[in-house]
Amino acid sequence: MSQPRGPLSQLRRGHEELVLGLLRKHGPLSRGELGRRCGLSRTTLYDILAELVAGGAVVTASERETPRGRGRPAETLTLNPDAGQAIGIDFARRGLHVAAINLAHEIVGSASEPHDADLPWEQRVELAGRLVGSLTGGTLSLGALSAIGVGVVGPVAGPAGGPKEGDTRDDGAGEDGAGGEEPAGPHPAQVLLRERFGVPVLLDNNTRLAALGEAIWGAAAGVRDVLYLRLSHGVGGGLVVGGSLHRGAYGLSGEFGHITVDQDGARCDCGGTGCLETVASIRAVLDAYRAAGGHAGDVPGLAKAAGAGDAAALAVLDGVGTGIGGVLAALCNAIGPSVIVVGGELAETGTALMDPIERALRAHVMPVSRHRVSLRRATLGEVAGALGGIALVLHESPLLSRYPAGPELTEDLPMTPHDTRPAKENS
Amino acid sequence: MSQPRGPLSQLRRGHEELVLGLLRKHGPLSRGELGRRCGLSRTTLYDILAELVAGGAVVTASERETPRGRGRPAETLTLNPDAGQAIGIDFARRGLHVAAINLAHEIVGSASEPHDADLPWEQRVELAGRLVGSLTGGTLSLGALSAIGVGVVGPVAGPAGGPKEGDTRDDGAGEDGAGGEEPAGPHPAQVLLRERFGVPVLLDNNTRLAALGEAIWGAAAGVRDVLYLRLSHGVGGGLVVGGSLHRGAYGLSGEFGHITVDQDGARCDCGGTGCLETVASIRAVLDAYRAAGGHAGDVPGLAKAAGAGDAAALAVLDGVGTGIGGVLAALCNAIGPSVIVVGGELAETGTALMDPIERALRAHVMPVSRHRVSLRRATLGEVAGALGGIALVLHESPLLSRYPAGPELTEDLPMTPHDTRPAKENS
Repeated sequence: MSQPRGPLSQLRRGHEELVLGLLRKHGPLSRGELGRRCGLSRTTLYDILAELVAGGAVVTASERETPRGRGRPAETLTLNPDAGQAIGIDFARRGLHVAAINLAHEIVGSASEPHDADLPWEQRVELAGRLVGSLTGGTLSLGALSAIGVGVVGPVAGPAGGPKEGDTRDDGAGEDGAGGEEPAGPHPAQVLLRERFGVPVLLDNNTRLAALGEAIWGAAAGVRDVLYLRLSHGVGGGLVVGGSLHRGAYGLSGEFGHITVDQDGARCDCGGTGCLETVASIRAVLDAYRAAGGHAGDVPGLAKAAGAGDAAALAVLDGVGTGIGGVLAALCNAIGPSVIVVGGELAETGTALMDPIERALRAHVMPVSRHRVSLRRATLGEVAGALGGIALVLHESPLLSRYPAGPELTEDLPMTPHDTRPAKENS
Repeated sequence: MSQPRGPLSQLRRGHEELVLGLLRKHGPLSRGELGRRCGLSRTTLYDILAELVAGGAVVTASERETPRGRGRPAETLTLNPDAGQAIGIDFARRGLHVAAINLAHEIVGSASEPHDADLPWEQRVELAGRLVGSLTGGTLSLGALSAIGVGVVGPVAGPAGGPKEGDTRDDGAGEDGAGGEEPAGPHPAQVLLRERFGVPVLLDNNTRLAALGEAIWGAAAGVRDVLYLRLSHGVGGGLVVGGSLHRGAYGLSGEFGHITVDQDGARCDCGGTGCLETVASIRAVLDAYRAAGGHAGDVPGLAKAAGAGDAAALAVLDGVGTGIGGVLAALCNAIGPSVIVVGGELAETGTALMDPIERALRAHVMPVSRHRVSLRRATLGEVAGALGGIALVLHESPLLSRYPAGPELTEDLPMTPHDTRPAKENS
C-alpha cells in the first residue's frame, strides 16, 4: 500500500482528491459528468478512476433508468461507503482509542481498549491495527486510506523543532535520569504505523486533539474561544483562541495539570510540587476518597457513590472541583474564552464535580465575565482525541487554518533501528 | 478636515495611498515616473497630486541636475517629512501618552503628561490635542492624517458586540451601583477626537495596545508567542498567540491583574478578593513598603531605595515578585509563550523585582519549559500603548492580520449629546 511521494505522485493524489471531492459533493456521477466537472483530460480521468476503483475507493453502479429511456443504462461512479479515508488513533496513557471516517467524511466507527501503562509500542500499534480492523464489523476497506492522525501523551511541537513526544518533563531529577534531552527522529508510533499502513502519519498531543474534536463536533462546536480541560489519569487540556487551535511555543500549551495549586502539596511526576494533577487526576481523587473512608476502585464506583449521596464522595469532589474552578477562573481572566469544556473520565461524576467547579469559577473570575463564560461537559467521550486526529488529517476545519503542521512521517522508512520503548508519560 | 466617507472618496483614498506608498518606497519621483508606476490616468494622477500637495502631504522639489544636462530641471515629488499620517493616543488612568508617525512611517515624536484620575474626557482630549501639537516642536502638519488609534482602560470588544470601555467590572456591588450594564454607542474619546481631528478613530484596550507595541517594536519584536504583563496603577497585560494579537471573547483577555493570588486578601476594585492587582499595583506596593517602615512617595523613590540596598524595599519587592512569578508560571503552562515581557512603571525597580519574578517563574513553570521561556523587561516605556495605537491604524503587522476590527468611529457625528463623564476605571 506504500506510495511513492514524489511530485508526480503528489499531482496524482491531487487529481484523486478532486475526483473524490466531486463524488462527495454531488453523489453518484457518470464518467461524462465527472469529466465535465473536473476539467481533467479523458485519459487522465479514466486512469485515475481505474486506480480508484481498483483500490476500492470508488464503486460502479448502473443507473436504474436512463434519460428518455434510450440506449443502454449509463454506468455511474460513487464513493465506496466501506472505504476508510482517514483514521485517528489516540495512544492514551492506559488505553487506546481509534476512529475512522469513510470517503464521504462520515464517521464509520470508533473503538477503545484499555491496556497497561507500560505496554510496548509494538504491541500498542498491533492493538491499534486490530481495533481499526474491527470497525464496522471488519468490512472497512483501507485501500483508499490517505493518512493517519495520531495523538500521543506529552508535548509535540511542529516540524520547526522543539520538544517531541517522549521529551521528558524532568530536568534529570525524574525516573529515568535521562536529563530531558529530546530524542531525535520520528516517534515510534509513527514509524510502526507507517510500516503497517504505508500512509503518512501525522502526530500531535492527544489532549490537544481532544480539544480540537470537542471544538469541531462536540460541546463547543462553532465557538471561537474555547478552553478544554481533561481530567483523566493525567490532567491537561487545549485552547482554541480566536478561532484557531493553539499549539504554543515548543508545543507546550494546555498543560493545565501542571499549574501549581498548593505550594506545600505533593510531588508531581513532572518534577514540580503541588500541581493541579496531584489533586485532580483519577488516582489523586480516588486516593483522597479512600483516605476519607470511602470505597471505590474506579471512577464509575466513585460516581455511583456521589450519585447516592455518599458524604465522603461529595466532600472529596467538592474540594477537587473548588481547586479546579479556581484555576479555570485564573485562565479565564488571562485568555478570555467564552466556553469552558470539561472532559475526561472524572467529568462522568457529573454535578457532584461540575457544581463546585462552577461555583469556584464564578467566585474567582472577574465579575464582568461571570455571566459571559459558559461551563459545559464534554460530549464526545473517550474518542474525542481520535476524532481530533481525523480532523488533523482532513485539515478542513477553520480551527486548523493557521495551525502549524505537525511532525509528519511520510518519507521512506529509515534503515536504522528505532527506540520503540514506551515513551515516558507524565501528562 | 472632515472628509466624506462614500465609495468615491474611498476610491480616491485608495489612489492617494497608492501614490504615497510609491513615494514611501522609492523616495522622490517625478510626475512621469509616478505615472509609469501607478497606472492611474494622467488626469487622475495630477488631480490626486494636487490634493496631496495642497493638504501638505507631498512637497515638490527641483532636481539639482537633469539627465544629460538638457532642458529645465525636472520637478520631483516627495513625502513631506513633517506631515503626520497617524496618531496613537493612550488614555491611561492618570496620564496620557501620544505618538505620531509621518508619511514615511517614521515615528516623528512622542509625549506624555500626567493628570488626575478624574479629569473629564473633554479636558483629556484637549490635553491630547495640545500634546499632538507639541510633537516635533509644533511643526507636525496634520493635513495628511489618516486615522487615530486610541487606547483606553478596560475591556474593548469588536464591532460584533460585547463590552465597551466604560463597562464596569462590578455586578452592582460597586461604587456606582449601576449594575454593570454596557453603555450603548461610541466611547466619549472617540466622539471628541472625531470632532477635533475629523478622521476615523479606532479604539482598543490600552494595555493590549502596549502588548502590540512591544511585540512589534519592543522587547519581543518578531516573537510569535508573547505574554506581556504591565505593572502600573492597574495590573493587566496582553497576549500574542501563534503570531496574532489575541482579543478574547468579549474583549476580555489579558486581565492578569484580576487573577486571585490570595483568597483571604484585600478587596479589589473589580469586586473580587485578593486579586494580583491588590498586591502588585503601584499603590499596593508603595503601601506595603510604607507598612514595612519604608519611605517612598513614588516608584522612582522605591527604586532608588531598592538600588541602595534598603532591606524593607528589597523584601517588599521580593514578596511581590514571588507572587507575580507564580501567576506567570501558571499562565506559561497554560498558554506556552516563548517570551514574557514585563512593563509598566514598577518594572523600573529593575532586578530587585525581576529577579524574584524569575525565580518564582522558574520554580513553578513545568520543568520542561524552565529553560525555554525568556523573561524580559519592556523596552518602549510609557509610550508603548500609543505606539500600539499607531500599529492598529496602519494594520500592517502580521500580528494584526487576523485581529478583529475594533470599534471605529467614522460616521457623521450623531446630533444627540453624549455621556462624556470619565469612564469608570478599574484596571
